[in-house]
Amino acid sequence: MVPRLTTALKGPLLELEQRILTAQPAIEHWFRTQWQEHTPPFYSSVDLRNSGFKLAPVDTNLFPGGFNNLNPDFLPLCVHAVQSAVEKICPEARGVLLIPENHTRNQFYLQNVAQLGRILRQAGFNVRIGSLLPEITQPTTLELANGNTLTLEPLVRTGNRLGVKDFDPCVILLNNDLSSGAPDILKNLEQTVLPPLEAGWYVRRKSRHFAAYHQVTGQFADLIKIDPWLIDPYFAVCNQVNFHEKVGEDCLAAQVDAVLQQIRAKYAEYDVKQDPFVIVKADAGTYGMGIMTVKDASEVRDLNRKQRNKMAVVKEGLQVSDVLVQEGVYTFENLNEAVAEPVVYMIDRYVVGGFYRMHTERGVDENLNAPGMRFEPLAFEDCCILPNPDCEPDDMPNRFYAYGVVARLAMLAASLELEGMQA
Amino acid sequence: MVPRLTTALKGPLLELEQRILTAQPAIEHWFRTQWQEHTPPFYSSVDLRNSGFKLAPVDTNLFPGGFNNLNPDFLPLCVHAVQSAVEKICPEARGVLLIPENHTRNQFYLQNVAQLGRILRQAGFNVRIGSLLPEITQPTTLELANGNTLTLEPLVRTGNRLGVKDFDPCVILLNNDLSSGAPDILKNLEQTVLPPLEAGWYVRRKSRHFAAYHQVTGQFADLIKIDPWLIDPYFAVCNQVNFHEKVGEDCLAAQVDAVLQQIRAKYAEYDVKQDPFVIVKADAGTYGMGIMTVKDASEVRDLNRKQRNKMAVVKEGLQVSDVLVQEGVYTFENLNEAVAEPVVYMIDRYVVGGFYRMHTERGVDENLNAPGMRFEPLAFEDCCILPNPDCEPDDMPNRFYAYGVVARLAMLAASLELEGMQA
Repeated sequence: MVPRLTTALKGPLLELEQRILTAQPAIEHWFRTQWQEHTPPFYSSVDLRNSGFKLAPVDTNLFPGGFNNLNPDFLPLCVHAVQSAVEKICPEARGVLLIPENHTRNQFYLQNVAQLGRILRQAGFNVRIGSLLPEITQPTTLELANGNTLTLEPLVRTGNRLGVKDFDPCVILLNNDLSSGAPDILKNLEQTVLPPLEAGWYVRRKSRHFAAYHQVTGQFADLIKIDPWLIDPYFAVCNQVNFHEKVGEDCLAAQVDAVLQQIRAKYAEYDVKQDPFVIVKADAGTYGMGIMTVKDASEVRDLNRKQRNKMAVVKEGLQVSDVLVQEGVYTFENLNEAVAEPVVYMIDRYVVGGFYRMHTERGVDENLNAPGMRFEPLAFEDCCILPNPDCEPDDMPNRFYAYGVVARLAMLAASLELEGMQA
Repeated sequence: MVPRLTTALKGPLLELEQRILTAQPAIEHWFRTQWQEHTPPFYSSVDLRNSGFKLAPVDTNLFPGGFNNLNPDFLPLCVHAVQSAVEKICPEARGVLLIPENHTRNQFYLQNVAQLGRILRQAGFNVRIGSLLPEITQPTTLELANGNTLTLEPLVRTGNRLGVKDFDPCVILLNNDLSSGAPDILKNLEQTVLPPLEAGWYVRRKSRHFAAYHQVTGQFADLIKIDPWLIDPYFAVCNQVNFHEKVGEDCLAAQVDAVLQQIRAKYAEYDVKQDPFVIVKADAGTYGMGIMTVKDASEVRDLNRKQRNKMAVVKEGLQVSDVLVQEGVYTFENLNEAVAEPVVYMIDRYVVGGFYRMHTERGVDENLNAPGMRFEPLAFEDCCILPNPDCEPDDMPNRFYAYGVVARLAMLAASLELEGMQA
């Protein structure tokens, strides 16, 4: 039994949740019509922040890890959703080659890969795991902390087909976000690659995602008659920043100031007493490296060497040059003393569960997905799809339904984003 | 926590289950290709019998009651499946009119209707319940034993559209098996009617269903290299029987004898020690009325008046004229002293759970769905879609996976059957 989480502020969000709850038939109908026109990503996870007065996504991952953190009760939902996704994309598929991140020691991540393999197998596929790591030259079985094992195999490319020894899959499923680019071995394959290579962080930009999200929430807010700001964070971008050489600080300071101004106006309108803040982070990349919480433009000027080094690189040592300035959303969800950030998981267009990132040492205005940060995952007790209009809107299934709706809006934005890339 | 059920015989069925388990990727691929060509019924339930040496469906219901008996943990599966079904059939749908059986006192049935309404609402539809009962002339709220209420409303037909007051639905969902024919008010509607009227028992014949099932299992048995008999019961039909006037007894005796002979040969082949038996029942209709267990052709001759009366009518007083003679499958599943019969539920092409009919006063060769019979429903602990190849084939998830596969074969047969009617 997973404990109930509380939010500190209940006023306006209850109103938002009530609006979402009341509009449920209209919302589901709207999503259905969207899926007639757009193709959802194969899978995705969305980090949400719930400030009580605002509920918004802050990151959308198209190569989600963390499937091992979901409530095992919802495994059947994952199996259904995978079957439905494959049926649409490649009904002929029998074999799936899963390509994970290049980790061999991160137990949490490896358990995620094992869980993904399990879901795919239970959905009825032959599954093998192919590694991009050069040191994997033969099948290598890793022991997992939970007693299971995971076998990584070297990739074998034959012409334009990719597989592993004695296995010619129909589908390549990437669980590797391609931060440092698409390896040649993945290019020009005749098999279906999910998600497409362009979804990798070497192409993707958070700013493009949030621009698409802005477009989506505009329509959605019209539909249910809310101020789109209640679900949509402000953002701005600076290109050609070079933290090492102090290039682009003026742009950054100006954008920080502009976004803070916008937030300040909204806080005044809604009588929010907290201090506005922004998150400054790399426009490409993941893992929460190179992230700052900023409450005044002066903070991004005259960074010391340590701060500049921290901001300058993300995963795999990549240099940051495009920087996103995003409205910070306080997280007022907490359990006991720990700050909690919900992460919602989707496969195809279906919400399949989620969990909370919980951390006792972080503040309500800090990013909870930072390097070296050991969060405690806390699986949602609820699957986010069982709203109950007979209960109060802060009733858990109803709050989780709202989380699932906002996460699906971000996922729809990712669909538009990917369409834009492939156009 | 639902207790584990046991089967008395474990030999050949373990082999069958093992075969099904090993072939899982091939089976799921095969089902996917089938659903490219055929449309599954909106919903269905399949009564299975597990004799240890044989696992077979004995009835397929296209207007399933009993959703209230499913494990509430699997409610999200129902919601996903309904969303997927509607998306394919009528993505524009917002409102669903549910038309139940004409019961106002059967608490078990009413709770089923309430549960169906809940599933549809959670899938995002506006739902109202329209009654065919002439005495429902205004909205009538019934109190349910579990504390909930259910409101039945009189149907309103305007031109070729059916609804209830102030509600013009996109879809009419029948949970009424139309035993006594399709009422005029349901005919020639411009809205989508699910399942189609032809699925009603006034048209449907069990023999046509089992002929389609025979065709399906022939292909399936080829696929996984088994004797189709292990999942397919023999059957034969007598038409123009009149029990009251003792017309057709010769035909019946001959068919009983023929089917018993076929079973006897198979029992010899598989070294089964039990006595072969057949079930004699109406070829149309439901509710297990007019059902006999027969071990010798002589038993269908010279029925006494009481037996003849019992066999002559089914639900709603309909006269039986077409009679099905079906191979009886022993049920050797039991819990403590009670005989148990699994019923698997599906929405669209997805297995969404099931339950056991349990009865202490019935024998292993008797029908467990008989009038006046109070069975104890026992929800499956498992959702039938999580086979685990690392466990023994009699491990519960694996047994339930086999149940789900055989139930889906029957559901596929129903698809062919409905296509045949609409052709």
